[in-house]
Amino acid sequence: MNTNRTGAQTIRLPRAPAIVSFAAVGGHMEGAGPLKDCFDELSEDHFWGEKTWEKGESTMQRHALSHALEKANLQYSDVEIVFAGDLLNQCIGSTFSLRETNIPFYGLYGACSTMGEALSLAALSVDGGYARTAAAMTSSHFCTAERQYRTPVPYGSQRTPTAQWTATAAGCCILGEAGEGPYVTHVTTGRIVDPGVTDANNMGAAMAAAAYDTLTVLLRDTKTQPSDYDLILTGDLGFLGHRIVTDLFAQDGMDVSGNYNDCGLLLFDREQQDMHCGGSGCGCSASVLCGHVLRGMREKKWNRVIFAPTGALLSPVSTAQGESIPGICHALILSNEREAS
Amino acid sequence: MNTNRTGAQTIRLPRAPAIVSFAAVGGHMEGAGPLKDCFDELSEDHFWGEKTWEKGESTMQRHALSHALEKANLQYSDVEIVFAGDLLNQCIGSTFSLRETNIPFYGLYGACSTMGEALSLAALSVDGGYARTAAAMTSSHFCTAERQYRTPVPYGSQRTPTAQWTATAAGCCILGEAGEGPYVTHVTTGRIVDPGVTDANNMGAAMAAAAYDTLTVLLRDTKTQPSDYDLILTGDLGFLGHRIVTDLFAQDGMDVSGNYNDCGLLLFDREQQDMHCGGSGCGCSASVLCGHVLRGMREKKWNRVIFAPTGALLSPVSTAQGESIPGICHALILSNEREAS
Repeated sequence: MNTNRTGAQTIRLPRAPAIVSFAAVGGHMEGAGPLKDCFDELSEDHFWGEKTWEKGESTMQRHALSHALEKANLQYSDVEIVFAGDLLNQCIGSTFSLRETNIPFYGLYGACSTMGEALSLAALSVDGGYARTAAAMTSSHFCTAERQYRTPVPYGSQRTPTAQWTATAAGCCILGEAGEGPYVTHVTTGRIVDPGVTDANNMGAAMAAAAYDTLTVLLRDTKTQPSDYDLILTGDLGFLGHRIVTDLFAQDGMDVSGNYNDCGLLLFDREQQDMHCGGSGCGCSASVLCGHVLRGMREKKWNRVIFAPTGALLSPVSTAQGESIPGICHALILSNEREAS
Repeated sequence: MNTNRTGAQTIRLPRAPAIVSFAAVGGHMEGAGPLKDCFDELSEDHFWGEKTWEKGESTMQRHALSHALEKANLQYSDVEIVFAGDLLNQCIGSTFSLRETNIPFYGLYGACSTMGEALSLAALSVDGGYARTAAAMTSSHFCTAERQYRTPVPYGSQRTPTAQWTATAAGCCILGEAGEGPYVTHVTTGRIVDPGVTDANNMGAAMAAAAYDTLTVLLRDTKTQPSDYDLILTGDLGFLGHRIVTDLFAQDGMDVSGNYNDCGLLLFDREQQDMHCGGSGCGCSASVLCGHVLRGMREKKWNRVIFAPTGALLSPVSTAQGESIPGICHALILSNEREAS
């Protein structure tokens, strides 16, 4: 029986599906940040023309899908499977965004690691010949997330120094068997790592252990070093989590300071935009990937990238019941070269 | 490029992964119902030894995994990927059940269709050579679901005639490349169907349209008739939804009355147990599959089965905002024969 597994948690994709198209959309704060030129659409309207923030998030996510399809001259009916999820209870951001599209749909929940999970499963679907064209997408919205996880925005609550800012953004990738690329060559499925952090306003620290775990496994499974990559990008660990991961690698004798960054540090200007520890939310890593990173790869700024978004698998109920915050990180290797299988 | 797609939404699995082991666990009501002898474990304790219902649900789900592994002489470390999800916000039932297992984990949200989604993706993973052993599991808990979706159980709210009873149950399947079976031969990925039902106490009617859609697509894609199957089993449509699906097929000139049933009608004795329209919840279809159905298939009571669990992709927020209830149904063909590829 052929197996495409490489080591403990990593899958080598023998046919290396192509990311044939991608799009990122964002809101006001994203449009005021350093990556503003990497978005396909920016909206000043938090409601995206809808009556509620939740409906607005769905509309924003559908816009990301539409832009990605349009850029590849594709229709809804060309997509054979879509993998999508978001932070809202029961993932209504994705459900209502896809309701009228008729695209066969698998719903995911991976918290802020969702883009990594969606992209992994979409890549496996295409690699295995189970779909000719698959989509991966996710979103987050500052106002829906604040209302659900913390307090409604109009309350004007103070944020702690370790807090991160949930991005109002969405990203979508379309994968196919052939195309310009970049290509997905490897997928490392994350496992849950819980270092015992109980402060729900310090998610970066909670998720850093999962990022370090998955990245370490990926490097071991693929027998590569951090220096083999032009860019290693974790999800939304922010300032503190990024520091912890850098320190953990340093303890292993690996200096990642030259090529390791975090989506939560890239999306906003932390100082100018008063973002405390940085950006977060599914839409943070998704829009940084589908704007900044994939554009940069097409321009050959980077040729080999690890994309490793992280998720904090807590809920307000688990926190109220005294549980710590389990983290997870799913990683993919993206390459401009389709490696020989 | 080889493609394993058959028709619009159906994937033919050329290697037909085997369901090498399965287990179902349930609570008090499930133990008082007609399928009580099909469970691997029944608990009279709603808390499963924990301090809260949510923690109890996690423990129950982990028991399902442990039983399934034990029956196949496997350990956590033998499972290369687990696909799991549940009804709780942020899927904490699955997250906390898997926290200490170290199994690479993809989290899903498919409401009550989750077992269909998990089993589909686990089957694709094994079929594609991406995992040698994969697990699919889900759970639901009457008390956690009532508290989250309706009102806390101690309030003693009255239930409407179309209401269903969320099962306190969990099911787990272990899939492998070889083994006794049954085998997963086809997977049909559902799309969202929203017939416009807005009554959150009438989920059966809301989901019936999705079940009819996916089953119709599956039959068309595989060029089969309802009579080609020993059993066609929808998720948890209950009494009303089952009647609607039967009627919709009758309008197409197909009589499914002889071999079509619904997990929500099987798990409980509707009259004796005062279940109104029947059972529901992820754990309903999962435990009926992993108890009653797979045992029956091993005993050759049925040799070819369509398992088609349905999910209502609403949330309390979407209902409060006036949205109707989008439904989805993921279907699989399970067979005692490994069909020639």
